[in-house]
Amino acid sequence: MDKFSRNQRVAAITKILIENPNKIINLNNFTDMFNAAKSTISEDLVVVKDILMKLSMGRIETISGAAGGVKYVCGLSYEKSKEFAEKLCIILKNRERIIPGNFLYMTDLMFNPQVIHTAGIILAASFIDKNVDYVVTVETKGIPLAYEVAKMLGVQLVVVRRETKVTEGSTLSINYVSGSSGRIQNMSLSKKAMNKGSKCVFVDDFMKAGGTALGIIDLLKEFDSELLGIGVLIDNVENPKKLIHHYVSIVDFKGIDENGEALLFPSKMFK
Amino acid sequence: MDKFSRNQRVAAITKILIENPNKIINLNNFTDMFNAAKSTISEDLVVVKDILMKLSMGRIETISGAAGGVKYVCGLSYEKSKEFAEKLCIILKNRERIIPGNFLYMTDLMFNPQVIHTAGIILAASFIDKNVDYVVTVETKGIPLAYEVAKMLGVQLVVVRRETKVTEGSTLSINYVSGSSGRIQNMSLSKKAMNKGSKCVFVDDFMKAGGTALGIIDLLKEFDSELLGIGVLIDNVENPKKLIHHYVSIVDFKGIDENGEALLFPSKMFK
Repeated sequence: MDKFSRNQRVAAITKILIENPNKIINLNNFTDMFNAAKSTISEDLVVVKDILMKLSMGRIETISGAAGGVKYVCGLSYEKSKEFAEKLCIILKNRERIIPGNFLYMTDLMFNPQVIHTAGIILAASFIDKNVDYVVTVETKGIPLAYEVAKMLGVQLVVVRRETKVTEGSTLSINYVSGSSGRIQNMSLSKKAMNKGSKCVFVDDFMKAGGTALGIIDLLKEFDSELLGIGVLIDNVENPKKLIHHYVSIVDFKGIDENGEALLFPSKMFK
Repeated sequence: MDKFSRNQRVAAITKILIENPNKIINLNNFTDMFNAAKSTISEDLVVVKDILMKLSMGRIETISGAAGGVKYVCGLSYEKSKEFAEKLCIILKNRERIIPGNFLYMTDLMFNPQVIHTAGIILAASFIDKNVDYVVTVETKGIPLAYEVAKMLGVQLVVVRRETKVTEGSTLSINYVSGSSGRIQNMSLSKKAMNKGSKCVFVDDFMKAGGTALGIIDLLKEFDSELLGIGVLIDNVENPKKLIHHYVSIVDFKGIDENGEALLFPSKMFK
């Protein structure tokens, strides 16, 4: 049987915990893997726990009982989160990002794994105590961010579609009114996608008036499910008639001024 | 200044490397963070390197030179990859997954972070030597998988859209013929999404005839860019007239037999 040093066990345990956020891992997995006593593994876990806390890199929680074990819970310090939001503002202020119609091109950020990984940790950390069953998003641009949040919360991602697809089986569709354009839009979700009576958070790239979020609340009602939180990367705070008031965002967008400069600030999370 | 034990440094270094796959991290980052000599950090890295190799959990590579450092390269043993493919087949064979039109419902798997994380590692490992600039996918179901592959390769994800969007700026659109239905379809990509002369891999959920992949090759030509590889989770091997011959897949789907059973097997990668 292979022998492992404490250093080696600590490295491997760290990797396994980090790769399974918010999933309880029974200590027997580690005692079997390393042919080590539970007390030895517990000491290894103290090392991991202490250093994550010391460096504000998330935390290790111990869950007692028969189904117990340890789990990694993601987190980022206030300072590092704020620094991330500030960096994002600088990147977004690049004048080449302004496109006809006074939109801000941000697709590259929504599909940049390093940006989305950090944003996902910040949003997930704000939902961690809600014990949700699903993270819900609407296609397309918010999918990687919602995926990261779902991964960090250890739950399934659900993607609401704009149109029904033959590969989805029976679907539930609703109409909703876009808060910014006032147009009626459609969203649909496979009946197989979600269990009845579920608790959800909604994650998206950008919040305008919040019509889409209201639509999600309606859609979830059809699944006897409820929305416990909303998180977006960028909040268009320029919009005066918000339909939704409780949500978290990372960056505030206040439109583009007369000099053609995009007004961007870390969100109220960092005030 | 804080003092850190070797155990603590090893845990923190493991976390940082794992969270930045295929990104070169200069050793100065670690010497500064832990107020430790380069030789000390090098010894820490040997511990991480050895245990990852011992447990087939990927590898640590050392890059020499001024821009050098260390990086984590993802990987999974042949046995664990095959075990994953076999598990996936069992899950997909559930009769409740067959939906009208003899389609297999697999959306939940494509949006399951634990499944997609492992699938992403397997596909990324097969592209790691190609030094690609982008991972490309077409909306919608393949986005999380393509995102994981992009993350593991340390590159940007590019999502080709079915329709042009006002938030994308100038776009390039092409028409292509779906290999299975024979219908003409459209795909478009923002001109800002990709630099000219790039090397790409295409990742998707499902391969039928390969018409979409051919479309991607045409679209990339418009960006003077080339496709170096294709990876899918599930390959419909029932389709006799494949338009594409070089690609990797994890699971083979051979249709649904007369008893209503889906025929699924680990792909030829595991033969």
